[in-house]
Amino acid sequence: MKYWILITICCAITIIGCNDTSKSNAIDEERPDYTIVIHGGAGTILKKNMTPEKDKAYREAMNEALSIGEAILKSGGSSMDAVEKTINFMENSELFNAGKGAVFTHKGKNEMDASIMYGKDQNAGAVGGVTNIKHPISAARAVLEKSDHVMMAGKGAEEFAEINGIEIVDPSYFRTERRWNSLQRILKSEKEESELSESDDVDKKHGTVGCVALDRDGNISAGTSTGGMTNKKYNRLGDSPIIGAGTFADNATCGVSSTGHGEYFIRYTVARDIAAMMEYGGKSLAESSNYIINEKLVEKGGTGGIVALDRKGNVSMDFNTAGMYRGYAKPGERVVKIYKEE
Amino acid sequence: MKYWILITICCAITIIGCNDTSKSNAIDEERPDYTIVIHGGAGTILKKNMTPEKDKAYREAMNEALSIGEAILKSGGSSMDAVEKTINFMENSELFNAGKGAVFTHKGKNEMDASIMYGKDQNAGAVGGVTNIKHPISAARAVLEKSDHVMMAGKGAEEFAEINGIEIVDPSYFRTERRWNSLQRILKSEKEESELSESDDVDKKHGTVGCVALDRDGNISAGTSTGGMTNKKYNRLGDSPIIGAGTFADNATCGVSSTGHGEYFIRYTVARDIAAMMEYGGKSLAESSNYIINEKLVEKGGTGGIVALDRKGNVSMDFNTAGMYRGYAKPGERVVKIYKEE
Repeated sequence: MKYWILITICCAITIIGCNDTSKSNAIDEERPDYTIVIHGGAGTILKKNMTPEKDKAYREAMNEALSIGEAILKSGGSSMDAVEKTINFMENSELFNAGKGAVFTHKGKNEMDASIMYGKDQNAGAVGGVTNIKHPISAARAVLEKSDHVMMAGKGAEEFAEINGIEIVDPSYFRTERRWNSLQRILKSEKEESELSESDDVDKKHGTVGCVALDRDGNISAGTSTGGMTNKKYNRLGDSPIIGAGTFADNATCGVSSTGHGEYFIRYTVARDIAAMMEYGGKSLAESSNYIINEKLVEKGGTGGIVALDRKGNVSMDFNTAGMYRGYAKPGERVVKIYKEE
Repeated sequence: MKYWILITICCAITIIGCNDTSKSNAIDEERPDYTIVIHGGAGTILKKNMTPEKDKAYREAMNEALSIGEAILKSGGSSMDAVEKTINFMENSELFNAGKGAVFTHKGKNEMDASIMYGKDQNAGAVGGVTNIKHPISAARAVLEKSDHVMMAGKGAEEFAEINGIEIVDPSYFRTERRWNSLQRILKSEKEESELSESDDVDKKHGTVGCVALDRDGNISAGTSTGGMTNKKYNRLGDSPIIGAGTFADNATCGVSSTGHGEYFIRYTVARDIAAMMEYGGKSLAESSNYIINEKLVEKGGTGGIVALDRKGNVSMDFNTAGMYRGYAKPGERVVKIYKEE
């Protein structure tokens, strides 16, 4: 008889364990006052190809980006503000493939994508293929806050942004010598039917910036902004403006911003997949992001990485490439890294 | 001592049960030779607002669509062919908001979106905001098969389609009196600052067509095609071209095509969410689609529905609106329905 009682109890544990998809929003005393994590793209970023000056410039830029978001969060500001302003800074930097530093398309234009999501209500906004918006992430936020839509593309997105007071610039603003030269090298190598070594231009394929923040109220926001892929054709949209691929946020699980070979991130809904594994599989953020990035994506041939945080402020910065510009800050803690081994 | 053996065994069952994310592709003897399921949009589709002629026309069109896909599958054709050709037929019909029957944007244009995904390798293709492609689903398939990209938008997508032999038509091809009059009624009601009753135009918000098929080889494909939302502005993209929102397919779990208030389907990654609940939560297709559509989405305020099938040919056609044009076929079985109660 006692055996059956034990079996019944254990089976009950099994059923309860497997069905635990509850989403508690209760305030957690362990949660830090704030947490912020950023990335500036993943790819073949090797120390041997970096000059000390370039290494230093990236670290300084990432530290400054983190400080901008941290100051907002420290003073009780919202995670949405922290994500937008941190990404705005990275969009202004020529170091990263977003905003000012956006790469060129095959036709020699700059076409940018961005998205942002608020974990409290899972509202989201995105713009795709915009050419004259100084800060695409701010346009994505305007879509979230000032329209009934989630995603707008091309001319329509630009028109909406302008009507809503988002800064418009002449497309020539995005022309930087570094990115222009990258395109010329690729076009030349295409003619020569040879492959350009990725090490010549670490942001060639995987340049993107992203930020995820957790504020004092426990609200998670995530945002991603990019110039896309150098030499891209046919108004290709990558994962950055796609909710569930490039960006995802849900207070109940986590916030994620992706960077990598966008097509794989779309097909495997990478940002959502990490949250889904937590939500339905009961896994931790660390287990989920490690599995998706270092096992599932690797098996499928998808290169890239993510930064993410959960509602307790746990941070993940997983990537399956040689390097990823990345860093996080929480009270009394600051980390900035570039290479795999450091 | 025996108690401990039992506890150990039961705990092992718990762990194995909770971690069962394995993806067996083994051929299942229970699987029917083929299965195909379609939808033609969900919304305020009430019997009282339908004439017998209109009711009959929709049922005939859905039966014909199913027969096209069924013939391909019966003869051992691929699920990709079945999905494309079935949707091609629905794109040619003025009854549905896709292709020829596409609704008008605020500016009086027709802007169409479509996506398709192959469950065997999870490759995917999508086009957004195209204006001169007769069969957007075929353009989406060309993106899948003939490019390294997943998603293309606007002019670039049109250019790519034309280069790849997809039929191009003059945008005036998509002008139908019914849809033009719908736009005029909405523009008039906007001026009068009143809301047009949805019952006047069942496809106003939720018109989309979709198809999911399982072929003899056990491969699942899913596709979705739409004219979007009547009176949409700013090159809005809905869920139909978004992998994970409007369309998803994975042989290991299921294939899904969505129709509904697209913004909610994007934010909650509805198509992927159903598959994720199966993959990580160990739920059946019926449990997952019922939970996502009738509980989660209802709680969030999102209206619409899905058609889906799993690798055993189980079919789900869940919707939380008054009706959804829907039907499925498998050997010896054919169902076509419109209203909730029938």
